[in-house]
This record gives sequence, C-alpha cells and structure tokens, in this order.
Amino acid sequence: MPAPWITYRPELKVLDCTVRDGGLINDHHFDDDFVKAIYETCVAAGIDYMEIGYKNSKKLFPPDNFGPWKHCDEEDIRRIVGDNSTPLKLAAMCDAGKSDWQTDVLPKSESVLDMIRVAFYVHQVSEAVDMIHDAAEKGYEVSANLMAVSTATETEIEQALEVLANTPASVLVVVDSFGSLYAEQIEILVKKYMEYARSDAKMVGMHAHNNQQLAFANTIEAIIHGANRVDASMAGLGRGAGNCPMELLIGFLRNPKFHIRPIYQVLQDYLQPLRRVVEWGPYVEYNITGQLNQHPRAAIAARRGEERDKYVEFYDKLTSDV
Amino acid sequence: MPAPWITYRPELKVLDCTVRDGGLINDHHFDDDFVKAIYETCVAAGIDYMEIGYKNSKKLFPPDNFGPWKHCDEEDIRRIVGDNSTPLKLAAMCDAGKSDWQTDVLPKSESVLDMIRVAFYVHQVSEAVDMIHDAAEKGYEVSANLMAVSTATETEIEQALEVLANTPASVLVVVDSFGSLYAEQIEILVKKYMEYARSDAKMVGMHAHNNQQLAFANTIEAIIHGANRVDASMAGLGRGAGNCPMELLIGFLRNPKFHIRPIYQVLQDYLQPLRRVVEWGPYVEYNITGQLNQHPRAAIAARRGEERDKYVEFYDKLTSDV
Repeated sequence: MPAPWITYRPELKVLDCTVRDGGLINDHHFDDDFVKAIYETCVAAGIDYMEIGYKNSKKLFPPDNFGPWKHCDEEDIRRIVGDNSTPLKLAAMCDAGKSDWQTDVLPKSESVLDMIRVAFYVHQVSEAVDMIHDAAEKGYEVSANLMAVSTATETEIEQALEVLANTPASVLVVVDSFGSLYAEQIEILVKKYMEYARSDAKMVGMHAHNNQQLAFANTIEAIIHGANRVDASMAGLGRGAGNCPMELLIGFLRNPKFHIRPIYQVLQDYLQPLRRVVEWGPYVEYNITGQLNQHPRAAIAARRGEERDKYVEFYDKLTSDV
Repeated sequence: MPAPWITYRPELKVLDCTVRDGGLINDHHFDDDFVKAIYETCVAAGIDYMEIGYKNSKKLFPPDNFGPWKHCDEEDIRRIVGDNSTPLKLAAMCDAGKSDWQTDVLPKSESVLDMIRVAFYVHQVSEAVDMIHDAAEKGYEVSANLMAVSTATETEIEQALEVLANTPASVLVVVDSFGSLYAEQIEILVKKYMEYARSDAKMVGMHAHNNQQLAFANTIEAIIHGANRVDASMAGLGRGAGNCPMELLIGFLRNPKFHIRPIYQVLQDYLQPLRRVVEWGPYVEYNITGQLNQHPRAAIAARRGEERDKYVEFYDKLTSDV
C-alpha cells in the first residue's frame, strides 16, 4: 500500500526551533558545541531556517541567570555561525511584553539574523503589530506567532488576523502552545489563517506541541491544508512535551533537498545524551494538561518534584473546583 | 477555540490489547496481579472489550518458555476474571499458521471468552476464513485482523476483503502492524474496508502502532471515517513502539460511559513501574522501520543489543543494498 500522495512541495519550508524552544527547559544554558551541532545539522539536512533563541529583555531575564540564547547577542550568534555563508536562514524570537525590541533588535545590516519571529498572546496584538513594523523596517523577514490559540475565541482570532493581515509580517503561524488541538481543529485554523494570509501573499505556518502525541500528525495536517512554513525540533526537544520531531517530519517530506541522515547523527551524538540531563516528551502529566487545554506549567512543576508520575493526584488537582 | 465536533458515538467500542500485544515484549510473562489490574481497570473505565492474550499453539510456543497469556487456557483466564459477571467482553487472538484453533478454541458454552480475533497475513486468508467459520460456529463473535496491510497491494487487500465479506466475521480491522501509515492512507483503507463491511452490517476496526507517533492520530482518523471498533492499550504498551495509548483515546472520546481516572491509576501503579523492566515506545529505531515500512524486528533487536541508540549505523544497515 504505497503512500497515495506526493509530499514534495518546493515552496514548503522547515524551521528548526530546537535551541529556542528547547532552551525553555534549561534556561537556554546550551553550550556552544551543542548549538553549533544543531546549526551544522540544519545546514547538512537542507533545513530552511534555524531559530537560534530569543531576543528577550536582559532586565527581565538577567544574563547571570540565563544562557546566551535567551538574548541572542550578535557576538554570541557569530561565535557559532560566523557570517553564516550557508543557505540556512537564521531566526530569533521576540516575546511581546518580555523584550526590549526597540533597542535589542539591531538593524538587519548589523546582524546575521534573517528573520524575527514575534510571539504574543491575543491580548498583546497591539504591541505585536508595533514589533512587526519595527522588525520589518529594520530589514527583517517577520513572522507573527499568536500563541495559545486554543484558548482564544474565534472572534478574537479573527480580529487578530484582520489586524495582522495589514502588517508586513510574511508568515502567520498557528501556534498550539498547549498541545491540546486535534487534527480537525488544525484544519479549521489553517484554513482560517489562509483566508487572511491570501490577500497579501503571506504564508501560513504551524508550531505544534506534543502533549497528546499529536505534534507530528497535526503538522502533517497543517501541510495538507496549505501551511508552507512548519516548525520542528531535533528529537522534538522543546518545553514540556516538546515539539514536532524533526526526524519524523523530514522522513515524511519527499523533497529531495532534505537529508535525514545528519539528523540521526545529531540525535545520536547530542540529543540522546541530553536526555540524561533534561527531560522532555509526552509524559502523562502533559497528556493531562493538553486534554484540559491548560498551560503546561503545572505539569512541568509536577515532573520536577515529588509528585512526578502520580497521575491520579495530578489529575484530581487540575480537575477539582477548589 | 472549542473542539468543533462531537466525539460521542454510542456504537463506538474500544478494545484493550494491553496484555495481548504487550505480551509480545515479555513472552506473555505477566503475573496475575498485573493482568487482574488491567481487567479491573477496563471494567472501571467502561471499556468494551479486553483482549487477554493469544490462543496460540503449545507445540510452537512451549508453555515452559511462555507465560499463560500466549495460550489463554480457560483455567488461567478464570483465575483472573472468574465467570466475568461484568459488561466487559473478553477476547483472545488466534494467529493463522501459529495456532491449533480446531482443538484449542473451545465451544463458547465452555469458555468465558466472548470474541475470537483471527490474525493473518494476506497470503493466509484461506486458513483465516476456515478459522473465522470455526470460531463463529463454536458460538463466538469473530474479528478478522489482516495484518501488515501496509505491505499488501491494493488488489490483494480487495481480494481478501471480498472473501472476508462473505464470512461470519462481524469486524474487519485495519491493522498497521509496522506503524508506517499516514492519516491519508488510513482514510483510504477505512473507506475501502467500510465498502466491503457495509453489505453485511459488519463493523470496521483500527489497530495502530506508534512507530511514527501516529497511533493515536491514526485511530482518531479511522474513527472520523467510520471505524467503530478501535484498539488501544494502557500507556500504549505493545510490541516495539507500542499501540495507541488508551489514556489519550479515552481523553478524546466524549462518551460519558468512559472514565479516565481509573486509567491514570493503573498507569501510575502498574505501567510506569513496568517501564523499569521492559521497554516500549516510539524510539528512533522504530521511527526508522516505520518510515521504511518494515517489520520492527530489526529495531527490536537493535534496542536490546549493543547497537542501541546508534541510529546512523542502524539507518545505514537498513537502507544499504548489501
């Protein structure tokens, strides 16, 4: 029973968010060797974008407490990528409410970054619009990442998309921060985002979380319905349950520009060893917060403490009215 | 963003295959306490069927080498379930070519089992038909489980379904033994099985494997397209990458007859401790055999040996022409 459809679509582009999203587990304390391995793997695998970290506020996130990928200073990035004379584009994320984007995002001419991804909750859409304009005027490709879309109402989503459609953002990303969405919801959202994107030749993206072991399936679903920018991470490294595993996504895509073997190499040499130090993946606590459409923070806390693997107590706590 | 569809469908029935498929990891050496815990959880959770093991040949699988759930002698089953005075129905699986079904499947009047699931590869369909007739004549509900459908041609599948449509089997199960199918292939297969099932009021089932983290997603997909009999297992316990996790499936289904809390309890008390002794789940080696549409046996061997977590060597071995 051969696959009945072709998954080679030249305009489809893949973004690696291993260091950016994975850094939420360890306060972005990756050493240079790890970040360089991810970078070189992305280049060898034919991946289109690598999101190397956040450009978030040093006041809110003091450099003494966080690794360099929380701030992505130009000198830190260049220590890894030099002038990045590769086809791989580099991205960094700015959070609304948590970044000093006016000053910290340099003019593109002074930076090796290619893209700024603006992340925001629906109530922060006004600041997001300012951030998008700022980054575009500085010369970057810009992506609008409306987070936790599973907790926004349809009206809120539509109003946000209407505003975003009139910005210079070239990508609108469906972000399932809580890993709570099923394929049919992904279909509805991607189609909705496509409507607003179409008028301005924007692309639609997908950023999935794996709380219910649906990150890969939902990413495929988004691709089927027209998403041309999709996020994944090596071994699914990412906060809590993690993201769509790159090794599954690249195994699915039939575009000959992608190469899977370098990905297995970095999994073997870097990600598997990392599991001894930090934990991520669709553990039962993350299943529960995903099913309940909640932020994973309670699950993260439970898995770090004495309550780890006490699923019933955890479920009772989250579903009690007290 | 609320779920846009209702997943309460009264005729949908769930089968637990924890002990049967999970036993392929440990030669069915589960102790009675474990099997009883699964049984009681199924009852408490409102699950419809529990597949308690195989009725396979004692000549081919000597009782000295295998636990009782490889043969499901009546006395072994009754030690766990008594006369099973619960709404939970009990099933056992017979493999074509590996079971002495003529003698080992007792008349229903002498057994606490309710259903016989006949498992076979496409070249064994003739014996499967004989087995289905035998079990039906003995008084059982019967299910036809055509295994490894991802390696059969469309013509083979259609010919098998045509033959099976004329048997007393009441369920035709789509079985993705290698965990290699994507949602669109599931859709095509379920629709095809439905065509053949419809004429005789048979049901279509789904048995997924989790090699590509798609077991749950593919089970949802099968349900959407009309499958009313779906398999899952506690914590996804099953050979290799395992099956569709029951805790995810029951979290998705909105039928009030299902209760998820007892499932979290058995995960906590039995499945999580079991992980210290046996391994299952979508490890990279299983991703690879799934992507290559191969039997997981090479991956199982790799994970038990020195080659564990040497993904590149494993990938090279499986993709070399030598």
